[in-house]
Amino acid sequence: MAARKSKRADDRAPAPSAAPIITLTTDFGTRDPFVGIMRGVILGIAPSTRIVDLTHAVPAQNVLAGAHLLASAARWFPRGTIHVAVVDPGVGTRRRALAVETADAWFVGPDNGVLSLAVPARAVRRIVDVSRSPYRLRPVSRTFHGRDVFAPVAAALANGVDPARLGPAVATMQRLRPSRPVRRGKALVGAVLWVDGFGNATTDIAATDLARADFRGQRLSITIAGHVVPFRSSYAAVSPGRAVALVNSSDLVEIAVNAGSASTALGASPGVAVRIEVD
Amino acid sequence: MAARKSKRADDRAPAPSAAPIITLTTDFGTRDPFVGIMRGVILGIAPSTRIVDLTHAVPAQNVLAGAHLLASAARWFPRGTIHVAVVDPGVGTRRRALAVETADAWFVGPDNGVLSLAVPARAVRRIVDVSRSPYRLRPVSRTFHGRDVFAPVAAALANGVDPARLGPAVATMQRLRPSRPVRRGKALVGAVLWVDGFGNATTDIAATDLARADFRGQRLSITIAGHVVPFRSSYAAVSPGRAVALVNSSDLVEIAVNAGSASTALGASPGVAVRIEVD
Amino acid sequence: MAARKSKRADDRAPAPSAAPIITLTTDFGTRDPFVGIMRGVILGIAPSTRIVDLTHAVPAQNVLAGAHLLASAARWFPRGTIHVAVVDPGVGTRRRALAVETADAWFVGPDNGVLSLAVPARAVRRIVDVSRSPYRLRPVSRTFHGRDVFAPVAAALANGVDPARLGPAVATMQRLRPSRPVRRGKALVGAVLWVDGFGNATTDIAATDLARADFRGQRLSITIAGHVVPFRSSYAAVSPGRAVALVNSSDLVEIAVNAGSASTALGASPGVAVRIEVD
Repeated sequence: MAARKSKRADDRAPAPSAAPIITLTTDFGTRDPFVGIMRGVILGIAPSTRIVDLTHAVPAQNVLAGAHLLASAARWFPRGTIHVAVVDPGVGTRRRALAVETADAWFVGPDNGVLSLAVPARAVRRIVDVSRSPYRLRPVSRTFHGRDVFAPVAAALANGVDPARLGPAVATMQRLRPSRPVRRGKALVGAVLWVDGFGNATTDIAATDLARADFRGQRLSITIAGHVVPFRSSYAAVSPGRAVALVNSSDLVEIAVNAGSASTALGASPGVAVRIEVD
Repeated sequence: MAARKSKRADDRAPAPSAAPIITLTTDFGTRDPFVGIMRGVILGIAPSTRIVDLTHAVPAQNVLAGAHLLASAARWFPRGTIHVAVVDPGVGTRRRALAVETADAWFVGPDNGVLSLAVPARAVRRIVDVSRSPYRLRPVSRTFHGRDVFAPVAAALANGVDPARLGPAVATMQRLRPSRPVRRGKALVGAVLWVDGFGNATTDIAATDLARADFRGQRLSITIAGHVVPFRSSYAAVSPGRAVALVNSSDLVEIAVNAGSASTALGASPGVAVRIEVD
Repeated sequence: MAARKSKRADDRAPAPSAAPIITLTTDFGTRDPFVGIMRGVILGIAPSTRIVDLTHAVPAQNVLAGAHLLASAARWFPRGTIHVAVVDPGVGTRRRALAVETADAWFVGPDNGVLSLAVPARAVRRIVDVSRSPYRLRPVSRTFHGRDVFAPVAAALANGVDPARLGPAVATMQRLRPSRPVRRGKALVGAVLWVDGFGNATTDIAATDLARADFRGQRLSITIAGHVVPFRSSYAAVSPGRAVALVNSSDLVEIAVNAGSASTALGASPGVAVRIEVD
């Protein structure tokens, strides 16, 4: 994935004059005007910013789900993008607010791990504690730091403000431990990470795990909740209504039902174990 | 709130050359392409406009809910923003279409009260009847004035068209009477205005009402549907699953359940009475 | 409709320097970051593009519904707009990927008919097979051509790339047969095409069909699932809770319930027959 990313970044880097991009990942939903208000604050400070929704349907206060979704999407954005993630059950407490710089992007959000899967430790260039940033809106509410802290700090970054002026540099950030498959004899055993809107189940088993397990070129099958599912290369490689496993667009093993829902048909849901072995 | 708003506007006023902003508040949902069509019409007339969704999930034809949502969000946008609200059960009848100017913004929508909570009478600078505006699309449909009247009129404003050319000035507009708490002995009695996507219940009791009631600095509790809820300063000040009342990011009293839903747990829904008193 | 469209295009054509517009129509939903990722890819290649969502709530893999929704919305966008539609059950198989040019717009998507209702055969200027376009992202996944094929090809068009460089010209594309009403004696018999979020049922009977049937100026009624519904000119022409038929904003006959849902009250759903006759 690293090679792929840097190739694309070389090919496609926008001109330095391109408008800055801010992405938003939250558990706010779209029923309420919370996201619109964050956009209003950003455009008031940095009028030329392009704002992109990643998702606002992170399950309420599910930091791990938000972290996964952000990590899966962030690498598809051009260099210099500013990613804001607000899944923030500790809003109004002493949890810190962070802006984290990598070679490619900035990540802004609460220090509860929601940024951590998108920013492996080795990728961190700088961590800034923006909890008391002079760029916050005043007064700061106790319940909506998306508006009062994260949106204005991201907008300041979009305006090219020197990050040192946003707050003090700090050495560490909270990290979630990513779910990883384990070897059990000749099988590889992992788990479902999340289920998308089609009912397709993404697992924690990467294409590179398959290669490392010497599964390459062999006929594989995957077992989930008592169902044995064949490994193929596209959804349509099996008949409609039949289950199939494949490597998906995030380079992760995914279990799907052609023209159906693996969630409904197979009981696939986050945390459910999956087992891959040679057929 | 006024002081806070004008301070921010001073600090953050965009350069006059910044692209105009149009916000959209409707009951159209996002299943159908109605909102996309309004964006197409706006961008066809005023190509550089920044368009921001406040919400499209106003309950169908609930003018009061739309008015509350617009009022809560509009003040977070920079000066010069054009807010379009289309909750319009009377579309195709003789109800008027309006564009209303304040010191900070324009508000465009049907004359059924949906604009009125965002525009207190004292804030009105000018009301233009755009029902027969030459800037409408022709022919005007009987069912979709969002596309045929409100979008093109807002786009004309974004283009800097002289408002006098949009239609005749008129003296009055329909007003909804905002819900307000009342004093009952030592208690303050109000009502739930709306419930957000987290299940948090916003009431009609403002922080300023608490101050005026001489509640400041005292230990308060709030009663809703037979439940007595302590007053604290953040969601996380109570254990997960416990109810809490606080002043929310709109400076209104809100009833929540930490990591849960006050709607489900307490039966909080619009119109339900709430009572605040010294503990 | 043709006359109306060209009149508007003349009046409102943006300056050639206006930022290109790309619209997105998918069955991806908004729970997952798929749409955000497509935006990231587009903005990485063509940073000044304006991206507009038509809908992401096409029923999963329902090519016909996606084709109808795209056709109903596309004509409201300015000349030069690039419409991307991804309802793609055959992703990863040998189905072709197309970019189709008309006098007004480009349409980009899989060759399964999803583009065909927006692009009548007589309107086609050029069909380009972009299945192996050099502008795809590499490697191309088997499950997400929205990201790897359609987004980058649309962005290349937005950048003004010569369409001949996107892939070879081809002569034909898959076409869905649009649903059309038939004459049965003195009645016109059609069908419900889709039901919108309000529960209003759009039929395949156009205003021009009424004119051709010599119904103009007569009192009409419409029968659906055993209910006889009067023909009027606005929703509010009947009392709240009463059913009404009218010509809607797409110039199609629609069946609605004032302040209610025709879907719930009358059992209107896609495919249900409707019959119009003189009252």
